[in-house]
Amino acid sequence: MNGEERETSSLKTYTDDNALSTDLYQLTMAAAYLEAGQADKKAIFEMFIRKFPRNRSYLVAAGLEQVISFLLNMKFNDNHISYLESLEIFKRISDNFFEYLRKFKFTGTVWAVPEGTVLFPNEPLIRIEAPIIEAQIIETYLLSMINFQSLIATKASRIVNAAARGKRFIIEFGSRRAHGPEAALLAARASFIGGCIGTSNILAGLKFSIPIFGTMAHSFVMSFDREEEAFEQYIKTFPSNSFLLVDTYDTLTAVNKIIEMGLNASGIRLDSGDLYSLSTDARRLLDSAGYTSTKIMASGNLNEHVIRDLVNKDAPIDYFGVGTELSTSRDDPAMDGVYKLVAVKVQSSLPSPRSSTKAEGDSCDGEKEKILYKMKASTGRKTLPGPKQVYRLLDGDGRLKSDILALEDEYFENSIPLQKKVVDNGRLVHNNSLPSIKEIQMYHLKQMSLLRAESKELDSIPEKFPVIFSDRLQSLL
Amino acid sequence: MNGEERETSSLKTYTDDNALSTDLYQLTMAAAYLEAGQADKKAIFEMFIRKFPRNRSYLVAAGLEQVISFLLNMKFNDNHISYLESLEIFKRISDNFFEYLRKFKFTGTVWAVPEGTVLFPNEPLIRIEAPIIEAQIIETYLLSMINFQSLIATKASRIVNAAARGKRFIIEFGSRRAHGPEAALLAARASFIGGCIGTSNILAGLKFSIPIFGTMAHSFVMSFDREEEAFEQYIKTFPSNSFLLVDTYDTLTAVNKIIEMGLNASGIRLDSGDLYSLSTDARRLLDSAGYTSTKIMASGNLNEHVIRDLVNKDAPIDYFGVGTELSTSRDDPAMDGVYKLVAVKVQSSLPSPRSSTKAEGDSCDGEKEKILYKMKASTGRKTLPGPKQVYRLLDGDGRLKSDILALEDEYFENSIPLQKKVVDNGRLVHNNSLPSIKEIQMYHLKQMSLLRAESKELDSIPEKFPVIFSDRLQSLL
Repeated sequence: MNGEERETSSLKTYTDDNALSTDLYQLTMAAAYLEAGQADKKAIFEMFIRKFPRNRSYLVAAGLEQVISFLLNMKFNDNHISYLESLEIFKRISDNFFEYLRKFKFTGTVWAVPEGTVLFPNEPLIRIEAPIIEAQIIETYLLSMINFQSLIATKASRIVNAAARGKRFIIEFGSRRAHGPEAALLAARASFIGGCIGTSNILAGLKFSIPIFGTMAHSFVMSFDREEEAFEQYIKTFPSNSFLLVDTYDTLTAVNKIIEMGLNASGIRLDSGDLYSLSTDARRLLDSAGYTSTKIMASGNLNEHVIRDLVNKDAPIDYFGVGTELSTSRDDPAMDGVYKLVAVKVQSSLPSPRSSTKAEGDSCDGEKEKILYKMKASTGRKTLPGPKQVYRLLDGDGRLKSDILALEDEYFENSIPLQKKVVDNGRLVHNNSLPSIKEIQMYHLKQMSLLRAESKELDSIPEKFPVIFSDRLQSLL
Repeated sequence: MNGEERETSSLKTYTDDNALSTDLYQLTMAAAYLEAGQADKKAIFEMFIRKFPRNRSYLVAAGLEQVISFLLNMKFNDNHISYLESLEIFKRISDNFFEYLRKFKFTGTVWAVPEGTVLFPNEPLIRIEAPIIEAQIIETYLLSMINFQSLIATKASRIVNAAARGKRFIIEFGSRRAHGPEAALLAARASFIGGCIGTSNILAGLKFSIPIFGTMAHSFVMSFDREEEAFEQYIKTFPSNSFLLVDTYDTLTAVNKIIEMGLNASGIRLDSGDLYSLSTDARRLLDSAGYTSTKIMASGNLNEHVIRDLVNKDAPIDYFGVGTELSTSRDDPAMDGVYKLVAVKVQSSLPSPRSSTKAEGDSCDGEKEKILYKMKASTGRKTLPGPKQVYRLLDGDGRLKSDILALEDEYFENSIPLQKKVVDNGRLVHNNSLPSIKEIQMYHLKQMSLLRAESKELDSIPEKFPVIFSDRLQSLL
């Protein structure tokens, strides 16, 4: 096992085909906006979580870096355009549409909470102001990226928190059960943000400068005629960095072999059986033979609950390798993030359009623009109108007192506005280069210190999240 | 909405970085095999599912095409090699290792069940015979690809089956909740294999020739001053292909507007509320106004159970758009597939190596090779030794009678061996060009007809799967 780390530049996951990583309706709506002469209408969309995954009491925002990379780089290439042109549904659409796509460039402005921020339902992670056609086209990619990384960062944060007593570390080992190779890569990134010390995924090391770790597999042990031979050969190859897997045949027998052979293993890995009793027995064997610095790693169907129980019993485990449950957020694998229109801007020289819908809130005059608040009224799926900001208030202990969800132009004394402008008219904000993955992790760990212990309980969800709606927002509702 | 389809060639998801989409230990073990002079030892690995996801009573194999593409194309490029060279753990490793990676080419032989095959626990989906170093390096990618696509194909098959009474169709709409953009793409592919008629994901249309469908979003309706204007504009753009979303404000009011305006919509989409009563009322309104061919689509938190209940009540819904629950397999998002060493081949001129492990089964002489069966003995995680084949027996009605899990060189009269050789010494098997996605879907639907109704129940898992171990396999255990 080894914790490897290297600095590489960020903004790395853009791939050529991401412009088409979208739902067909985004492009049919785009065509309809163009035909209606409405494509340039300024729209404001917000992305927020409607309801937490099961048992979660807070959310960790993640995935912004990939979204920014996507916004600044996405392009429809010739291959994409000719595929779209070949589709029956676009057969009668004028060339204007394809011409528009060919020249597509995101020109909007983006406000977002920093990755690693702790948030609650209804609080916008991202707010985008852009010509409506642009704001619409980017929806699907944005949602899948933020939903997934926030899901995994949240799960990782819970697991790390469960292990936090004593010096115990979590490593993400879930690539083989993640939802495909890219999900494995993104899960490694999000897990690191949530507080894991690293991952087994090599590509995550290369792309995101995340420390990578590895031990050995059962197949390695089995491929040699004798377990001893496998251990010996591995240590010969990696003399200062060998975690030996000891459960292929019989765990404690294998530990005894390591001791008898005088092998200088960095650690052992337990992957099955009763991890409490095996780790306790193995620790005793190792210690009594003088191998006090040999570490113990445990893996195999671990999650935050199993880890909390092992930690509560003070099992002598130094590292937990967490796979499936982390990389799929197995107890609830979906983050219910949505992206909703909250306002449109119209030229104020025009007379205020008459409206028969329930969708408009009040409106306020800009210099040349009028902003119309928009609100969806679908059964059980109402949205909060208007462009919003989250204002965070701390109490005397520096803990989170409450968040005020308010319109973006409101002001609350001593509050910290969480959203910051990250893209301005299609360009990364000057002097706002993105934080490194390590900085994001540190920021998240600091965010966690805002929460009281009861907000970090694994099983009990607070009845009410500490989110207050401002008077103005309430009057709009 | 539109079902778009185009033929494109297959083998499309290979990307340049997939060689590093792997766990670090695959490469540390590779280095140790090289140092031990064991890299070329022929090994046989099998991939199988240990235990089904919750409530599943059968498995649908999927993902093979991407695995084959990966095996035939994966390469370690200069960027990968220099990253690996920079890692502390490989600092003392000889250049042989990096030279090996630079020239890496998969030379093994692959047997697999065709995509779309219905399978049960313990039955190998894939068997690989290759130099052990190659067989090991490919493990992580293979597992994440097969695990994920089989997970989603299985879930899709359940959902399609729940809707099967009457002419009702399922469309995959889950890109925004899938685990990142690639997972969205792969979920679309696997859903089609499981019987969905298409997806909203455009890239899946381009890459995999899957029909794509789309309607409109709430934001489109809300962006216009009046709902009527949104409907009118959309139909003007897509006169022969418009599904109008009717629940932004009030569902039945919107349906009445469509009728009063005389709009020629292909269909309407319901996305919230009581789908049974809304679809029934909307159908009545439409029919009594003569709009009998206007279709009804429903979406919003659907899964196989909700759909079964709607179908049982005969709700007049023609299309179900299924998102989150399908693209994440929400009720259980992990397929417990593993990849295990089952045998190694050694030169028979050598004396049979003495062994003190429990891992060896019996052995049989080949021409020049001796095959040693391997078996892992870890608590609760035993594996079945030896290279295996699945022999399927049908009864008089053409239904599945039982599968015999046996060693690959056994023979059972009237049985159908499920695994076929797809790659021979690193080359795609001659005359075995891969089936089209449509052929895979048709094959899966035919496979489903092998199962009796009780095996397709949504909630009850059969106590015993119809899998028998052959006498020889049993005697090895």
